[in-house]
Amino acid sequence: MSPSGTVGKPIRCRAAVGREPGAPLVIEEVVVAPPMPYEVRIRIICASLCHSDITFWKMKDPPGYFPRIFGHEAVGVVESVGENVDEVSAGDVVIPTFMSDCGDCADCKSSKSNLCSKLPFKLSPWMPRYETSRFTDIKGEPLFHFLFVSSFTEYTVVDIAHVVKIDPTAPPNKACLLGCGVSTGVGAAWRTANVEAESTVAIFGLGSIGLAVAEGARLCGATRIIGVDVNPRKFEIGKKFGVTDFVDAGKSGGKSLGQLIKDMTGGGADYCFECVGMSSLVEEAYAGCRKGWGKTVVLGVDRPGAQLSLNSSEVLHSGKSLMGSLFGGLKAKSDIPILLKQYMDKELQLDEFVTHEVNFEDINKAFELLLEGKSLRCVIWMRK
Amino acid sequence: MSPSGTVGKPIRCRAAVGREPGAPLVIEEVVVAPPMPYEVRIRIICASLCHSDITFWKMKDPPGYFPRIFGHEAVGVVESVGENVDEVSAGDVVIPTFMSDCGDCADCKSSKSNLCSKLPFKLSPWMPRYETSRFTDIKGEPLFHFLFVSSFTEYTVVDIAHVVKIDPTAPPNKACLLGCGVSTGVGAAWRTANVEAESTVAIFGLGSIGLAVAEGARLCGATRIIGVDVNPRKFEIGKKFGVTDFVDAGKSGGKSLGQLIKDMTGGGADYCFECVGMSSLVEEAYAGCRKGWGKTVVLGVDRPGAQLSLNSSEVLHSGKSLMGSLFGGLKAKSDIPILLKQYMDKELQLDEFVTHEVNFEDINKAFELLLEGKSLRCVIWMRK
Ligand SMILES: [Zn+2]
Ligand SMILES: [Zn+2]
Ligand SMILES: [Zn+2]
Ligand SMILES: [Zn+2]
Repeated sequence: MSPSGTVGKPIRCRAAVGREPGAPLVIEEVVVAPPMPYEVRIRIICASLCHSDITFWKMKDPPGYFPRIFGHEAVGVVESVGENVDEVSAGDVVIPTFMSDCGDCADCKSSKSNLCSKLPFKLSPWMPRYETSRFTDIKGEPLFHFLFVSSFTEYTVVDIAHVVKIDPTAPPNKACLLGCGVSTGVGAAWRTANVEAESTVAIFGLGSIGLAVAEGARLCGATRIIGVDVNPRKFEIGKKFGVTDFVDAGKSGGKSLGQLIKDMTGGGADYCFECVGMSSLVEEAYAGCRKGWGKTVVLGVDRPGAQLSLNSSEVLHSGKSLMGSLFGGLKAKSDIPILLKQYMDKELQLDEFVTHEVNFEDINKAFELLLEGKSLRCVIWMRK
Repeated sequence: MSPSGTVGKPIRCRAAVGREPGAPLVIEEVVVAPPMPYEVRIRIICASLCHSDITFWKMKDPPGYFPRIFGHEAVGVVESVGENVDEVSAGDVVIPTFMSDCGDCADCKSSKSNLCSKLPFKLSPWMPRYETSRFTDIKGEPLFHFLFVSSFTEYTVVDIAHVVKIDPTAPPNKACLLGCGVSTGVGAAWRTANVEAESTVAIFGLGSIGLAVAEGARLCGATRIIGVDVNPRKFEIGKKFGVTDFVDAGKSGGKSLGQLIKDMTGGGADYCFECVGMSSLVEEAYAGCRKGWGKTVVLGVDRPGAQLSLNSSEVLHSGKSLMGSLFGGLKAKSDIPILLKQYMDKELQLDEFVTHEVNFEDINKAFELLLEGKSLRCVIWMRK
């Protein structure tokens, strides 16, 4: 079917639909509506699986919604654009992102924020601008979107504020990683913490995000990168991304993790990153960072309503700062191309994150691998 | 008595001694030992009274100690120096400070920290380097020091790391304010938060420190400075220091203070300063600062052990940062002279903080005025 043959019309294609919480995705035919104004319809080339997909796929109650098309890391080609879209056109290679970058609001215009206020981040199951879906199943029932991306489908529709045009020569099975997890980790070191050369970094949790923080810290010139994890095998993986020291969180010998980091570094790490999503670990990270200038960056997603408790006197007297990082503080449209160029220039490592690749038909295998802790990133090819 | 007549010998002079928690100070004769190595003996010209004096004067248990010589904001003249002191000599005009600035340790050498690690801030009743006292009463019993300064006495001994040499032409009854409270507030806006021109600032608590934050924010070019206090009369005082808007914390109409600030500013203040010392207010300040870039700075001293509780998800998703500020992030030896020059150049306002002046004999009047909320700073002249 030629591109011109589909423009303005619904496209019938295959998608992996999450029908029930925790149940294998079902590959079925779906109908993808044409893009509305400010929207872009994208043919997905490949996608990768992130922990957030798993989290929401397991979720029985809102913000878990079913039936839903998951996936939010991908590379695709623009099939057609809706009205008022000038930024991309058919044939452009793009990365869709869960974070909006409208370019227009006070936040997007400020160099200090990546939290678009026009289309703010929220856990909505709809398109961001209209609160409707572009997906229906063959019975005509709507399917929910996921994180404004929904990439486990041959075609998807994404708001233009969530679309980043990229170098078309980039390998899509590596570039897709920049849509969420790897960018989040690298950005947290680069943009949020602004890690200085020669500094010491501690990373709590060496999953994909923690490893990406290490990679970002390595690129920033940190000379000591301490990984903290309950799984000692993570140290071997971590070394690939610049991790120089390891703390086995399960064998702290009665010492708190914060104290351990302080002891190892002669007073505390210059930067601590919490990548697990446990308030108690944020507290250890805060305790383990250097008085006077230490920064603690929170990346891990804790359960809703979780509270973080800090000692008031320590906050006052320590000179430390605490900050959160959503999408690593990156501005999607300007920063993803920078990271991609760093990859193309062999500075940023992405290949090492791709531990597995499967065909679309085997998408449930990608879920199994991540659930079993066997993969960092499994790439799912739509057509091979 | 000529200076040379006292060098190396104990000096007998008058001091206001706190004999019992909460009881009027007693002006009595005391003996001030000669400075030990790295110490400086100072003849106090004038001192001012800060809330921390009151806090510790009321305190029955450690870190409250009696008998004690309070006072930690002052200007004096060096009477003599101990061994290894080259930085100042007899006749130099100085401000003693509760914060050390040794110039030698990793923190003092770093531009990012003001928390000297060689002589770290602590609530000790002794000299910082020796853990002994230089004061005895006429019965020969030692008197405790306060915050490494003890300025309510004609002579005191201070470690050289706690001594800042200043312009001798500065009026001492204004310069003394730079020893603690005013510097803390101004520094919090200038050094800790680094308030940008044209920005919006909210200040929780318009005591002397909060007013000094306003003054610092005004100097940094903030265009909107919102004062929050339970006492509406503070607005009139605040206007002198650049406060442009007032929130009566007692009349919030059922809205949280954080929400009120957000509503007033269309999304939150760029900077919020908590100057009261209540964890719940820190939480409101955090809620009231702008997503994406808002900074919350904690200056208020809460009760020991108080915990600060923040919503983990807000920390992660808001892009806000939280930081503490001890002595406003100022490095005493380099920053106090800068602030004093700003005063001499009629940029920084200090005169407006001095609401009262008393002779040394009337020092208890200074306590009454502050306890009754009638003074911002009451200057105590040692000789008039
Ligand atoms: Zn925007
Ligand atoms: Zn993700
Ligand atoms: Zn020092
Ligand atoms: Zn003070």
